[in-house]
Amino acid sequence: MLPDWVHHDCPAISLPHRDAALARQGELTKPPGALGRLETLAVELAALQHTDRPSADRVPIIVFAGDHGIAAQGVSAFPQEVTIAMLANFAGGGAAISVLARELGSTLEVVDAGTLAEAPLPGVVTDKPRRGTRDFSSEPALDANDVAFAFDCGQRAVVRASVQKPDLLIFGEMGIGNTTTSATIAAALLGIEPDLMAGRGTGLDGAGRARKARIIASALLHHGLAPGASPERVFCAVGGLEIAAISGAIIAAAQSRIPVLVDGFIVSVAALAAVRINPSCRPYLLFSHRSAEQGHRLVLEAFEPRPLLDLDLRLGEGSGAALALPILRLACALHNRMATFAEAAVPGRT
Amino acid sequence: MLPDWVHHDCPAISLPHRDAALARQGELTKPPGALGRLETLAVELAALQHTDRPSADRVPIIVFAGDHGIAAQGVSAFPQEVTIAMLANFAGGGAAISVLARELGSTLEVVDAGTLAEAPLPGVVTDKPRRGTRDFSSEPALDANDVAFAFDCGQRAVVRASVQKPDLLIFGEMGIGNTTTSATIAAALLGIEPDLMAGRGTGLDGAGRARKARIIASALLHHGLAPGASPERVFCAVGGLEIAAISGAIIAAAQSRIPVLVDGFIVSVAALAAVRINPSCRPYLLFSHRSAEQGHRLVLEAFEPRPLLDLDLRLGEGSGAALALPILRLACALHNRMATFAEAAVPGRT
Repeated sequence: MLPDWVHHDCPAISLPHRDAALARQGELTKPPGALGRLETLAVELAALQHTDRPSADRVPIIVFAGDHGIAAQGVSAFPQEVTIAMLANFAGGGAAISVLARELGSTLEVVDAGTLAEAPLPGVVTDKPRRGTRDFSSEPALDANDVAFAFDCGQRAVVRASVQKPDLLIFGEMGIGNTTTSATIAAALLGIEPDLMAGRGTGLDGAGRARKARIIASALLHHGLAPGASPERVFCAVGGLEIAAISGAIIAAAQSRIPVLVDGFIVSVAALAAVRINPSCRPYLLFSHRSAEQGHRLVLEAFEPRPLLDLDLRLGEGSGAALALPILRLACALHNRMATFAEAAVPGRT
Repeated sequence: MLPDWVHHDCPAISLPHRDAALARQGELTKPPGALGRLETLAVELAALQHTDRPSADRVPIIVFAGDHGIAAQGVSAFPQEVTIAMLANFAGGGAAISVLARELGSTLEVVDAGTLAEAPLPGVVTDKPRRGTRDFSSEPALDANDVAFAFDCGQRAVVRASVQKPDLLIFGEMGIGNTTTSATIAAALLGIEPDLMAGRGTGLDGAGRARKARIIASALLHHGLAPGASPERVFCAVGGLEIAAISGAIIAAAQSRIPVLVDGFIVSVAALAAVRINPSCRPYLLFSHRSAEQGHRLVLEAFEPRPLLDLDLRLGEGSGAALALPILRLACALHNRMATFAEAAVPGRT
């Protein structure tokens, strides 16, 4: 059973703040609508944050890592040790998300939500029910208690970040094999063919990708996962711990009225599960980018087919969301700091 | 005659720096290619800047303004006085580009390259051969000397900005009626039907847009502008002063080995003219966004059909380029500051 809290309602958006923000956009010194999606973003944030002055200044980044038993089936171009090695690289400041967090002035917390590491790693929060998942090609990846633990792990991370009074949260992930797990979850939840959902991950060739799709198809059959299966059942069948943790973190953030800037394929799959479990978290999701990973487009279609960026990214770690953050910040600055026609004494439309 | 300097060659890109940047991208702790277009951007900047450590820190923004006689034909949703009123708003800090420049730490210079203003405006550099263009529906917009002056105006602005040792330059524009002038220039240079090229500008309705297209078609006939007409002839026929100034500024920047982050429709049209005049400036153009203005897609196809952003912007002022600047900065930060596989002791591909 998932913990009770995941089903609690998320707060409603503020319609008065939305309407006030819409009205202000119409008064700023620009043709109406000329700032395009930046106007929509500012209005959306004002409504979510219940404010006249939306903000994306304080945006902690939390990366959840986990290992995947399915890696034994050779579904990744990189060896499984990379998961733990990259945790050290995150903490040491050399990974993409470490560089981005520094540039953006964001804190970066790294959570071992289920890697194979035997001992806690320096600079990493260890919060896991077990080391890695089982190989879901032949057995259930997790027990129900493991999945519940992972959701609580996500909530605990949001509680830790909350001391910063975040304007938004960014969640990232690391885990060799996790595009395979994510594609399996998405194929099950959306009822989409594994061959359409499975992508090249960190760099499979065409044959490797086709093999990955066959492994997914076989696992769906093996576990009897038909469309309509509950996210909890899917997580038990195929994992993964970091993905379930992100689903939990998304729900916990929305319950605390903190919008989430959603990263790429894996975080979008976690968001899909989160919304299936608790639809009231949906308004809190802002989609940052469309990744080059094949299945992401299909998952996005369930949400928002046009995220902010489309730059052929396929790294994960939360990097796509981090790259989109300046757009949100500038959308807020424009909304809050531009002059109105009246203030600037600029004539309006003829 | 255009001034001689516009035909001088721009420096070649550095192939050794390009190759070294490509090699470094392959060594950073990420799957090869996983940062998508950010990798290409960093490599391109390294080659253009002749450096191992590309940078987009110092990026002055220069907005050129001009008035357009064609505004008398009712081609804009806003009255002509808005051009001058907006110059005051730029200088006063209330316009979109003013807010963006502050947020990005960029200087903002505003150049009156040809507005109707009778006296110099506070905080604005006045550098114009005449006040506004003539109405090109019935007479030539400019004399050849005016066009030459405008190109020199663009060069002078680049010289002023050069004391900052810019990593890049952003040019913006303001001028009621200038989407009509730009659409006419682009229709002439590319041989594309005015009805495809004319957009809604600051907010015309369908009938207004169709009327604008008819005015453009009629002007092309009136001035005998067939595909293959020289940019100089086109500028003389239809203007505009701020657009010609930006063409000059683009060539001058490239000749000084400064890449230009190209804004939306109008700046892209100026870039089209610049490349026709001096093809060696082409490598220095980075395209920031695809605007909602109908003709922009057609102009981009002559260059780079996939600019960095696609956010339904249609404001001008350089705002789209400013919004894309953080992407370039983060691309440089990732290139310069990520750890390599060797430095982080992360295993490579299996």
